Order: sequence, then C-alpha cells, then structure tokens
Amino acid sequence: MLHLVIAEAELEPVPKAIVDHPAVVNHARRRGKRPDEILLDSTYHHAAIKKLPDGERRGRPDIVHICLLNALESITSKEGLLRVYVHTRNDEVIHIKPETRIPRNYNRFVGLMESLFRDRVVPRGLELLRIEEKSLGELVEELNPDGVFVMHEEGKPTKPKDFGKILGGLENPLVIVGGFPHGDFRGETPGEKISIYEAPLMAWAVVNEVIINFEHWVP
Amino acid sequence: MLHLVIAEAELEPVPKAIVDHPAVVNHARRRGKRPDEILLDSTYHHAAIKKLPDGERRGRPDIVHICLLNALESITSKEGLLRVYVHTRNDEVIHIKPETRIPRNYNRFVGLMESLFRDRVVPRGLELLRIEEKSLGELVEELNPDGVFVMHEEGKPTKPKDFGKILGGLENPLVIVGGFPHGDFRGETPGEKISIYEAPLMAWAVVNEVIINFEHWVP
Repeated sequence: MLHLVIAEAELEPVPKAIVDHPAVVNHARRRGKRPDEILLDSTYHHAAIKKLPDGERRGRPDIVHICLLNALESITSKEGLLRVYVHTRNDEVIHIKPETRIPRNYNRFVGLMESLFRDRVVPRGLELLRIEEKSLGELVEELNPDGVFVMHEEGKPTKPKDFGKILGGLENPLVIVGGFPHGDFRGETPGEKISIYEAPLMAWAVVNEVIINFEHWVP
Repeated sequence: MLHLVIAEAELEPVPKAIVDHPAVVNHARRRGKRPDEILLDSTYHHAAIKKLPDGERRGRPDIVHICLLNALESITSKEGLLRVYVHTRNDEVIHIKPETRIPRNYNRFVGLMESLFRDRVVPRGLELLRIEEKSLGELVEELNPDGVFVMHEEGKPTKPKDFGKILGGLENPLVIVGGFPHGDFRGETPGEKISIYEAPLMAWAVVNEVIINFEHWVP
C-alpha cells in the first residue's frame, strides 16, 4: 500500500487578518457566503493575499484539487493500493476514504472544502472526508510506514522508474509531495529527499510520476 | 515525438437550441456575458443540457482542463517530446503550442476557451492556442504518424508499461484519448484499439498512463 501525502498544501479558509479586505468581502458576497467561511483563493483574493506572510504562494485549492483527481482516479487507487492524505500549511490533515468521488468541477470542490473546514467531516453520514489538527510528523508516525520519501528539487537524483522500483520493494512506503506552487517546505520533513527531474515540476506532475511508477512494480 | 489527441472532447459554446433556457440565461448574466458566448457546462446548465442529443455527456470543459494541465506539465512535455491537440464533438481542433501555460484556475480556463471560440486564436500576438474546423481523420492525416492508437475499453488488453514500450519504439506515434465522461466514440476512430485496464478510467488517468509510460522508453 502506497501512502501519498500532499504536504503543506496551500488550502485554508480566509485568515482573520484579511477577512475585511474588499477583495474578500466582494468575492464572498458574489458567492452568497460569509467572508470568514470561504476558502482563500489567489485567483480572487490577490490584492488581499499580498498582505499575508508567504502571500506569494498561498490560496491554491486548485493544486489540491488536481492532485486528488489524479490520485483517486489512478489505476493504483482502483486496485486498492493507494491512500491519500492532505496536510495543510496550518497543520491540519484531511483523511480521505479511498471510495471518495472528488467533485470534478472546481467550484463544487471549493464548496466541499468549505463545508469540511466548517463541519470537520463531510458528508455527515458517510464521513468520506475528515479533517483534524495534526502535524506532518504526527501523520507519518501514525501511519508507521517502512519507508518515507520527500519529493524535493534538491533531493537525490533518481529516475522516476527507479524510484518506482524502490517504492514497489516496500510494504508500506510513504511519499510526501509539496502542495504549494513553488519554493521549499517551510517546516521539518521527515524522510529521504528524492529528486525525479532536473527542473521544478508542478505538484500534480510529481503525484502522477510517483503513482504510475509505483504501479509498475507491484505484483 | 508523441502526439496526444483528446478526441470528441465535450467542449463547445452553448448550442443555439438552448441559448434561451433560463439555466443558461441566468448563468450568463451572473458571469456578465452573453448566453451565446459562454461554454456549455453540465455543472450549471444541467436542466437545459438534458434537452440536447447526448445531453448526459455534454458540457465537460473540466475534462479537457485536467487533461491539458497533466499533459503540458509532464516531464515528457518539458523534454520537448509531446504535442497535444484537442478535437471537439463539433469537429474543431485546438492546436496548442508546447510552451503554453494553461490557467490553473478552472474559471480562468473557461474564460480562455470562450475567447478562443470567439476569436479563433489566443492571445492575439503569440497565438499559443488556435482553433480550426477539422475532423479527427483530417488531423491524423495532417500529422502523418507512424503508429495510431485509440484508447478504448474494448481494445486489445495491453499493460500500460507494455504500451509505453510500443510507443517508445516508434518515431511519431499518435494516441487518441476520448475527452468525454463515459460511453463510446460517436464517430470513426482511426487506429488500433488498446485497453490498458479492465475497468473504465477517466480521460486524465489514461492521459497520465500514456505519457508516463511513453517517457520510460525514450532514450
């Protein structure tokens, strides 16, 4: 079983500091929601986000959305060999049941995440998604993998195919992929750093390489 | 060079037949656009789309968006070994320059496609995207590949890895992936039918498998 963690994902409700900013207030009004219950989104809150620390990388639910659509629709996932988790910049972890069908439409996905931040589980009965306060280190410890790898531009150069072989040789490997648009992890990342390409790749491109190359080496 | 065609993609402006439907008119008004210049989108036009032939599969710009984000951000694309084309249900073909940066945000992508259907090229100077009337057969003939494959549930069962090897052994293979949510191609599809998995896969999952398995076999 491969455990995939989208880590330090730029997924969060609008922080209190900018909840009164016109860019946020107007966007919330257009959507018929309260400013403090909408997701931070760089596409719409650009003018407000600049005022936040790390403003140039925050508010990217789209990255999480694309990573999840790719992971959950992969052959590896359909074979029951994949578990996916989203760890956010605010040290919360979203647990996702493998049978979850993530909304294909981005705006519906955003609505689902807003419900999740508010209610902590969605939908109420099935609890396909659950969010709780948890650091990346705590999540890794809880999952107790027999190998931990961090996809990193400055990691050990490893061809995607060879990395898949390493993963396939383990029982419960865990792979961490940064859920942010650029730059480095802000916090501690447990595990061996691996670089699968000589140039930066988008998070979802790394997710695809990891999952599909793992798939080759499972019996 | 791998040529990837997203074929019979469910990407089109709202058809004339439903341009006066309240679901379309209201959605266009909310977006500040004319009903005849917005993209058909099943998320918002569900009530109207039901009245169209093939209504249960139309209006899926999201499928094209995710396929393009995956293809253009892949290692194969960054290595200059991939060309991507979108063929639509109305026999139009979108040519995409490989350096194109597709908007990550879905709503921006929709806006870009609306501009493309209106202006036929975007952006005006760079012409990164160009749309023209062309059938799938005409596109394949124009590209003159040395192998043509159609990803199809009822095709020849072939492991993704083995299919990648076949592609890697050719100079200019062309792979056709259906850009619709379910069902079969409506028109003629030139090429050998290949099935990489025993169950249906979403279009973007197939795109990822094709591209990453091709990548393994290029020197």
